[in-house]
Amino acid sequence: MNDQYVKVAKLLGELVWHAHDQEDEMFLVVYGTLRIQLEGDREVSLSAGEFFVVPKGVQHNPVADEEVGVVLIETVTTAHTGSVQVEGTVPIERQIAPE
Amino acid sequence: MNDQYVKVAKLLGELVWHAHDQEDEMFLVVYGTLRIQLEGDREVSLSAGEFFVVPKGVQHNPVADEEVGVVLIETVTTAHTGSVQVEGTVPIERQIAPE
Repeated sequence: MNDQYVKVAKLLGELVWHAHDQEDEMFLVVYGTLRIQLEGDREVSLSAGEFFVVPKGVQHNPVADEEVGVVLIETVTTAHTGSVQVEGTVPIERQIAPE
Repeated sequence: MNDQYVKVAKLLGELVWHAHDQEDEMFLVVYGTLRIQLEGDREVSLSAGEFFVVPKGVQHNPVADEEVGVVLIETVTTAHTGSVQVEGTVPIERQIAPE
């Protein structure tokens, strides 16, 4: 809605450092604890019910030391890992229709 | 973020029939039960944890028979009651900075 996807996901492990040049990205934790490493040697830690918006252009790296359930709100054009491609990168087509 | 507000609100009573010509509107119920009357003699009933998106242009009327806690996701330009003005209409300035 309004060119945004509301996504439900389970995360485990570390993703990769990346940024979304044009899109803000909202993380809401449903269960577990999510650490989001941020450029400038910062880090936020989100527990159930807590959320954080990574502003466009900010380098970040989500880390789930144990399984975390999250809701993500992202513009439809948002690439999973920005301009970075790693083994864990999931293109939007596969996010919408998992194998 | 991404020209969207994520709003937290308590609702009680009936709002008013209205539509948002250009904006989708997402309702997520945190506690209580929210009925959303929709054009075409339809109605959805949302309990805690349930959500619904009212598509742009669709006439709707939220009704909270008892207090309901909701999260709303709305484009920043969304007028509370569309082109309709009633006593309960809250302009965005007052939503952001309550009296």
